[in-house]
Amino acid sequence: MGLEQIYDREAAHRPIGVFDSGVGGLTVFREIMRQMPGERIVYFGDTARVPYGSKSRDTILRFSRQIVRFLLGQGVKAIVVACNTASANALPVLEEECPVPIIGVIVPGAKTAAEVSRNGRIGVIGTTATITSGVYSEVIRQLRPDAQVLGRACPLFCPLVEEGLWEDPVTDEIARRYISELTGRGIDTLILGCTHYPLISKAIGRIAGEGVTLVNPAYETARELHILLREKKLENPDIPVLGSTEERYSFYVSDMADKFRGFANSIIPYGVLSAKAVTLEDQ
Amino acid sequence: MGLEQIYDREAAHRPIGVFDSGVGGLTVFREIMRQMPGERIVYFGDTARVPYGSKSRDTILRFSRQIVRFLLGQGVKAIVVACNTASANALPVLEEECPVPIIGVIVPGAKTAAEVSRNGRIGVIGTTATITSGVYSEVIRQLRPDAQVLGRACPLFCPLVEEGLWEDPVTDEIARRYISELTGRGIDTLILGCTHYPLISKAIGRIAGEGVTLVNPAYETARELHILLREKKLENPDIPVLGSTEERYSFYVSDMADKFRGFANSIIPYGVLSAKAVTLEDQ
Repeated sequence: MGLEQIYDREAAHRPIGVFDSGVGGLTVFREIMRQMPGERIVYFGDTARVPYGSKSRDTILRFSRQIVRFLLGQGVKAIVVACNTASANALPVLEEECPVPIIGVIVPGAKTAAEVSRNGRIGVIGTTATITSGVYSEVIRQLRPDAQVLGRACPLFCPLVEEGLWEDPVTDEIARRYISELTGRGIDTLILGCTHYPLISKAIGRIAGEGVTLVNPAYETARELHILLREKKLENPDIPVLGSTEERYSFYVSDMADKFRGFANSIIPYGVLSAKAVTLEDQ
Repeated sequence: MGLEQIYDREAAHRPIGVFDSGVGGLTVFREIMRQMPGERIVYFGDTARVPYGSKSRDTILRFSRQIVRFLLGQGVKAIVVACNTASANALPVLEEECPVPIIGVIVPGAKTAAEVSRNGRIGVIGTTATITSGVYSEVIRQLRPDAQVLGRACPLFCPLVEEGLWEDPVTDEIARRYISELTGRGIDTLILGCTHYPLISKAIGRIAGEGVTLVNPAYETARELHILLREKKLENPDIPVLGSTEERYSFYVSDMADKFRGFANSIIPYGVLSAKAVTLEDQ
């Protein structure tokens, strides 16, 4: 057995790192948990500086780099940028700098949309920073040059989700304003380009109508991660992983650990027993 | 002339520092401008880490300290914490540490409310961190022990203001949910306990009804600052100050300088010509 394989075997036992500006990335965490029950995961939510979606590319990159450094310090074997805003604005630089494989949520979501759309008119909803970056459009048109990609920033969706108004007339009214503009232009596919949005996918689906297929990049991101780990021989060979969920899954946040735990427990289908607060600025 | 007076004369020419987590503090800035046209002002908005209202006391204190250090570096003669969340959570510590006079927005607003309320039932609306701190209630009951103070966190107001929905049925509907709870309990006075809220005071007033007096702490804070400067012999003696508004007023932010300038121009009654972006974490 070559040295490289020994290294891989060691590396394969390490956890996957997943990060987001806050709690939204838990929808991706949940998918990875489901699709790869044999993996350990370290989650980081930057709750001291959330949201990222209204901030500049430079700031998003600076914050993302600090988090990647923190996750590498936790010995992760791969990193998932479970935040559309950070994927859109920081991933190209992080890919160059990061010594372990790193993937975002944009490419998996874009691929699916390019495949499932019949008429090539694809809507993307996300934060201001995600939509302004134009990255979804760029990736989709590489895969399907005839596609027309229509973006719409939805800055009020995150606060509404965080306030728990998942089923509420106010959320419906705001969704109507954001989405009718896209449906009016004939989209048949709509990418939920922010990890918060799957939590209000019912409201979004109601407004978008039956003719529009919603794409949740979380599912495809977990699938792509699975393929990547297999290719790199980084899948955890100890399946099923022994130990409690507490031993398998760790949660770190930069603030408000208790509030985070409460929110996490409404998303993750087992009791999230604890979340630790850490300060990132000095990392 | 004693040395102390010479020092004061030098100090009196220095600017006033005003800070907020973002743009809300501009409503206080505007009042200071109006009431003290002879003063120079340096404004700092922490737009890279906004909002503070959903964050913990420790984090709010850490961020506020970094800003105070920045403003002292700009040579300010006094500091106004033009943010209810930072005033409620960080001011007591900042007062101990800060070498120049520093005031917040809570005490001025609480004083006015204690004076104007007839029935002693006073409502306070603010961010989660402001309401949770209980500081308004504490200060009001020191001034008027018979008062009943009813607090209500309004976490969606800031996002709605920042999205420009100042006159909108959605803002009215959200205001109704937050405020009817307080009016139902007989308040006759309502403190706008967040510097964003004066921008939607029409909607809030409509919902609260004619029998409820709205208190905007910005006005009283500027008045208190004026008295303080006079007491400390720190008023600028060169009245009227010569020079352009550009020379008198400086704006610094930690991110999104252009967006800030646009917002500032909708609040400040002269063209805000520029805002400079600075990074605070290393301060």
